[in-house]
Amino acid sequence: MGGSGFGTIFTVTTFGESHGPALGCVIDGCPAGVPFSEEDIRRELSRRRPGGGGPATTRSEPDEPEILSGVFEGKTLGTPIAIMVRNTAQRPGDYDSLKDVYRPGHADWVWEAKYGFRDHRGGGRSSGRETLGRVAAGAAAKAFLSGFGITVRAWTSAVAGIDSPGPGESGFDLDEAERNPLRVPHRETAERILKVIEKLRAEGDSAGGIVSCSAAGLPPGLGDPVFGKLDARLAAAVLSIGAAKAVSFGAGFAAASSRGSLQNDRPVLKNGIAGDGGASCPLPPGVPDLEYETNNAGGVLGGISTGMPLEFTVAFKPIASISRHQETADREGNVRDLAIQGRHDVCVCPRAVPVVEAMTALVLADLLLLNRSGRT
Amino acid sequence: MGGSGFGTIFTVTTFGESHGPALGCVIDGCPAGVPFSEEDIRRELSRRRPGGGGPATTRSEPDEPEILSGVFEGKTLGTPIAIMVRNTAQRPGDYDSLKDVYRPGHADWVWEAKYGFRDHRGGGRSSGRETLGRVAAGAAAKAFLSGFGITVRAWTSAVAGIDSPGPGESGFDLDEAERNPLRVPHRETAERILKVIEKLRAEGDSAGGIVSCSAAGLPPGLGDPVFGKLDARLAAAVLSIGAAKAVSFGAGFAAASSRGSLQNDRPVLKNGIAGDGGASCPLPPGVPDLEYETNNAGGVLGGISTGMPLEFTVAFKPIASISRHQETADREGNVRDLAIQGRHDVCVCPRAVPVVEAMTALVLADLLLLNRSGRT
Amino acid sequence: MGGSGFGTIFTVTTFGESHGPALGCVIDGCPAGVPFSEEDIRRELSRRRPGGGGPATTRSEPDEPEILSGVFEGKTLGTPIAIMVRNTAQRPGDYDSLKDVYRPGHADWVWEAKYGFRDHRGGGRSSGRETLGRVAAGAAAKAFLSGFGITVRAWTSAVAGIDSPGPGESGFDLDEAERNPLRVPHRETAERILKVIEKLRAEGDSAGGIVSCSAAGLPPGLGDPVFGKLDARLAAAVLSIGAAKAVSFGAGFAAASSRGSLQNDRPVLKNGIAGDGGASCPLPPGVPDLEYETNNAGGVLGGISTGMPLEFTVAFKPIASISRHQETADREGNVRDLAIQGRHDVCVCPRAVPVVEAMTALVLADLLLLNRSGRT
Amino acid sequence: MGGSGFGTIFTVTTFGESHGPALGCVIDGCPAGVPFSEEDIRRELSRRRPGGGGPATTRSEPDEPEILSGVFEGKTLGTPIAIMVRNTAQRPGDYDSLKDVYRPGHADWVWEAKYGFRDHRGGGRSSGRETLGRVAAGAAAKAFLSGFGITVRAWTSAVAGIDSPGPGESGFDLDEAERNPLRVPHRETAERILKVIEKLRAEGDSAGGIVSCSAAGLPPGLGDPVFGKLDARLAAAVLSIGAAKAVSFGAGFAAASSRGSLQNDRPVLKNGIAGDGGASCPLPPGVPDLEYETNNAGGVLGGISTGMPLEFTVAFKPIASISRHQETADREGNVRDLAIQGRHDVCVCPRAVPVVEAMTALVLADLLLLNRSGRT
Repeated sequence: MGGSGFGTIFTVTTFGESHGPALGCVIDGCPAGVPFSEEDIRRELSRRRPGGGGPATTRSEPDEPEILSGVFEGKTLGTPIAIMVRNTAQRPGDYDSLKDVYRPGHADWVWEAKYGFRDHRGGGRSSGRETLGRVAAGAAAKAFLSGFGITVRAWTSAVAGIDSPGPGESGFDLDEAERNPLRVPHRETAERILKVIEKLRAEGDSAGGIVSCSAAGLPPGLGDPVFGKLDARLAAAVLSIGAAKAVSFGAGFAAASSRGSLQNDRPVLKNGIAGDGGASCPLPPGVPDLEYETNNAGGVLGGISTGMPLEFTVAFKPIASISRHQETADREGNVRDLAIQGRHDVCVCPRAVPVVEAMTALVLADLLLLNRSGRT
Repeated sequence: MGGSGFGTIFTVTTFGESHGPALGCVIDGCPAGVPFSEEDIRRELSRRRPGGGGPATTRSEPDEPEILSGVFEGKTLGTPIAIMVRNTAQRPGDYDSLKDVYRPGHADWVWEAKYGFRDHRGGGRSSGRETLGRVAAGAAAKAFLSGFGITVRAWTSAVAGIDSPGPGESGFDLDEAERNPLRVPHRETAERILKVIEKLRAEGDSAGGIVSCSAAGLPPGLGDPVFGKLDARLAAAVLSIGAAKAVSFGAGFAAASSRGSLQNDRPVLKNGIAGDGGASCPLPPGVPDLEYETNNAGGVLGGISTGMPLEFTVAFKPIASISRHQETADREGNVRDLAIQGRHDVCVCPRAVPVVEAMTALVLADLLLLNRSGRT
Repeated sequence: MGGSGFGTIFTVTTFGESHGPALGCVIDGCPAGVPFSEEDIRRELSRRRPGGGGPATTRSEPDEPEILSGVFEGKTLGTPIAIMVRNTAQRPGDYDSLKDVYRPGHADWVWEAKYGFRDHRGGGRSSGRETLGRVAAGAAAKAFLSGFGITVRAWTSAVAGIDSPGPGESGFDLDEAERNPLRVPHRETAERILKVIEKLRAEGDSAGGIVSCSAAGLPPGLGDPVFGKLDARLAAAVLSIGAAKAVSFGAGFAAASSRGSLQNDRPVLKNGIAGDGGASCPLPPGVPDLEYETNNAGGVLGGISTGMPLEFTVAFKPIASISRHQETADREGNVRDLAIQGRHDVCVCPRAVPVVEAMTALVLADLLLLNRSGRT
Repeated sequence: MGGSGFGTIFTVTTFGESHGPALGCVIDGCPAGVPFSEEDIRRELSRRRPGGGGPATTRSEPDEPEILSGVFEGKTLGTPIAIMVRNTAQRPGDYDSLKDVYRPGHADWVWEAKYGFRDHRGGGRSSGRETLGRVAAGAAAKAFLSGFGITVRAWTSAVAGIDSPGPGESGFDLDEAERNPLRVPHRETAERILKVIEKLRAEGDSAGGIVSCSAAGLPPGLGDPVFGKLDARLAAAVLSIGAAKAVSFGAGFAAASSRGSLQNDRPVLKNGIAGDGGASCPLPPGVPDLEYETNNAGGVLGGISTGMPLEFTVAFKPIASISRHQETADREGNVRDLAIQGRHDVCVCPRAVPVVEAMTALVLADLLLLNRSGRT
């Protein structure tokens, strides 16, 4: 089947089915000496479970991570880091009624069309629980990046068409995003969205939404020309998250209806010239330390980081499992009436926030190492 | 520097600077026996040059391809296919005035920040001419795909905020897209856009736009779970094209403000059950041959093709080289006034159309081969 | 640090330090439906521990494998297979006396020269215990191969210059190799070698040896031209085993002093022509089903399997940890007298046998899948 | 078909059939600023053609290289370097008599068994001419390595069982190896071998031989643990050369019959402690600068370079094309009598010498770049 590996130098392979014994990941290529512990993983894993009586009737598993290798006395050894979380609340019986029907909006039928069988026990590898391995690996990538002063933050910027204020807008508050279960960085917007979500839940329906992400502290120069571009890699990374349908960097789709004189970001001197002292980041000698007056580019030009914040948004479709009645087909091709029961979120965004961060951190860690190798 | 290779089984490496001796590509992994000739490449290369008095003051190079290896008597040998196009109209002198300033919206400064130098002769590898190797490789991928009945078509669906009718809408005509230099599939819209482009050109400005792409004839089952998803691979592929800023599959960003009951595509029986006869595509025995009533998913669910048309759009920012005056910084960090002269398009979309097709064809060819290997 | 991943389609990543919490592997790309269980792993792991009062004072850990994912009801799911073995007998204290000296024949100093530190607790990833993950992964590869009738067998063919009879020679008996702790396929030779080993142990010394490997049932056609050759891949695979210093295919070094008329293997008809019925293996239509009268090639021509048994030998240097006094250097560069204590084997070959098999099985499984993808 | 790409960071893809329009390579990942020109390639290509009335009736093509991209004003640009050599002396007719028979010792039948067809025009990609692209790429790798003081030299150390003196032995002279067409580093031995070769040629037979290689100036620390070992990578690299059957590092097969006390190389202080001044190569602070009294390891321990010369030998089988009569099979499975006419060498070693150097240089260049990325 393949496809569970990611990255070139800082690599990760995730494993685990939603209803198997355990899930986790192996990170290969993380340098030695990075402070990292199970507590770092636990913190990120808990962010996957917004809980709090919020929009998601969460599976209440503790998701207790165990580091099996690669870390000794609180620091990475440079060897592969294996992380495991045991599944404790498998209830495969929940899904028995679904084994002969193809749920609309799910990969049920394509999985059978591809592999000739399907693990109906809650999605197997296409379950949201697969992201647990990604988030654990992302915790290691974040730990590595923090040594370079790089931070990655994501939040829910819209649900069901209701937008939250964004960076630079009045009321935007990332701390608030960590406090409310929706991960919305604005309390009043969060409350409005919560009401819509409750209404949708009552109707047996679900909502799409948008997750925004910003990474700060990047040096200029991350990303390779042509096929290995920073934005190309990030696009693959975030579109590999279930339910993600679109990604947009900087002005993105808005740039498509704009004009060059409005979109071009103007470069201005930030500090001095490298080599003459005063450059704020490592630059080859003779290169001036610049920044840009605006950031329509979203921190990436020609596929290479500009040193400005990396900014992008990811669109997620509504949760496909809804309790409203839907018509679908079963294994004999018959029309079947379906109303999906069980614990399901209304909107995937709050849970997707740490996954978007994890994938972004993995790409940045990989590029930071690749960059070291390729510099003249 | 790296980053000029793409793909896993059906792979391509492109080479060539915009002002060096030649550009081209080497395709490794294309199976033997595929009908392919220089004429196939020539046709695609000519589509990169919309010409015709249209929006783009094109470089008038003939772009004559030569197949150096891998093809014998009109068929691929299975060996690496090397394709070369000599540069004939290099005029590096055109760019001498730009060698000490950083053009807004270009990768000039990030390139220097990364590599310590810059090839100011028209962009080097970040020039649009690099896509010539991609289009040549895409011609081979298309030839391979056509043996499976798979076609890939792209067109300009919007420029400067003016939208063209799309598939299923009145007046949509892909043949028209090949006739007009804008690659817009609707004559009246093309004429409206042309007027806007002429106005922008007169003002020394440029326009963004959107390219849409549709691939038909895909079997269900292309794409690998988790990180190797069809849409994730395509996103990386198209965002590696210069000036691309966003990609959206199916309902995409629109899905983010919608609800599950409206977004879920309903599966219905198309033909019979595989193994019982009547399946319209290769399916494992016992799996019904389904299709979907709608295609909000854009032909991909859980990262795997559904057999419905693959549909996505790519947003391109406005051409960064504009003749209007802009302020920028130079190598000493001084403020400089800049008005870029020379032959530049107003909107990149018409030239991007065959590149989007090429990248899509390369991803599909690769997945078709990967799929054969991984099937149980 | 990287480097713990192996393979293209059927891939494995191993993890675990000799004195950390656990060791294991994740296999990604194994097709679904392969019968596989912990018992298959246990059998192979027990072969790593020749025991029996034999040449090796083995660490007596039970090496109990646990499958964490990818297997359900005795069959692979097609998803990543994670396998873990907990370390139970860590005694890091054993190695404290060695933390400031560089053991001759070990990677102690080069590891420090590369990484700036060293895990002196018994070797970390350069310990023989790392091969546990390989052997577990090899068990899955063997299970996959057995569905195609492919078997992989290795044995100790020489120790300290004493050669065992080989295939086709009188007395050669692979069952005997499984009975004696030296894995020598000839009882009398095993007894002779055992005496030499006991003498060397008494002298505080160690012995080199040769492991031979034979894989039967391969179809012709495995391996890719140029860089992806079957023998090139196998060479990398087996030389990645600690203490391996050389590999030789078929007549190997002997061929270097021979002549063409003696080395060329003569092809003869084995069965009929493919497509006319009678071919004993899948062949393109019109290709005769051949075999070779001799097998100087060792089953590989031009890097592609011939359908004859794949035969190669691997030379292992003597175990570097010896209790005889040696002079070496310490961290201050001083000359130090060293006599390594503790439980050490005299010859690595018996333990290397299942590792050579595992690496061979992993290469063959990968090529079998690659072959399916690339065939015209 | 695939398999024509090699390397991770410093990568090469070769292209070209022996009788197609051109052969060559694309190098992706070579850093910018490396002095490199067509003259560097020409020098290496001429070493592939020992000529001089010597053992090989060489094809007399001039092999004139053209750099198509990636080099400007005598230095690499960091962009892909494409190199092309046109075929000028194709005489496909030479091979028509062979199109229905399978030559013993060649990949004729396995190629058909794999691909369903065969390019009988002199071998296609399995021809020795394919190595032209490798040697051209190796020239770039050597140019890159020379900036680090690393040199790679290979020579013919044995033909038909006649050994030349080796490094450290009386009469060994690498300059002599460049003077005589056999690439034997000892004039008298070369003359003896020449006589044997003439005798074999008269008998219509051929000879095997051994190529030895030594790389000097390597820093300690090249190579990755577990699967990415220096010797594992080199083994794959050199066994990808046609007719190579075995590779042996340092004492190699001889170590297999030796004992630990004789094989362990003793580390001794070479200079001071890194950080205290006096280390002769870049080492992490606090690590002593060591060397080894002997080099049985061949410059690699635990898969990582020790800083001692890297030393290995490669065994080549006798040239398979011989003019003596042989029995073989044809496409109908009939027994056929065969006597191969045409221009064929007696021993491949002289031509293999620059190819072994090229593959070694490519591995070392790749590891040097990888090493920069992975260091803590």
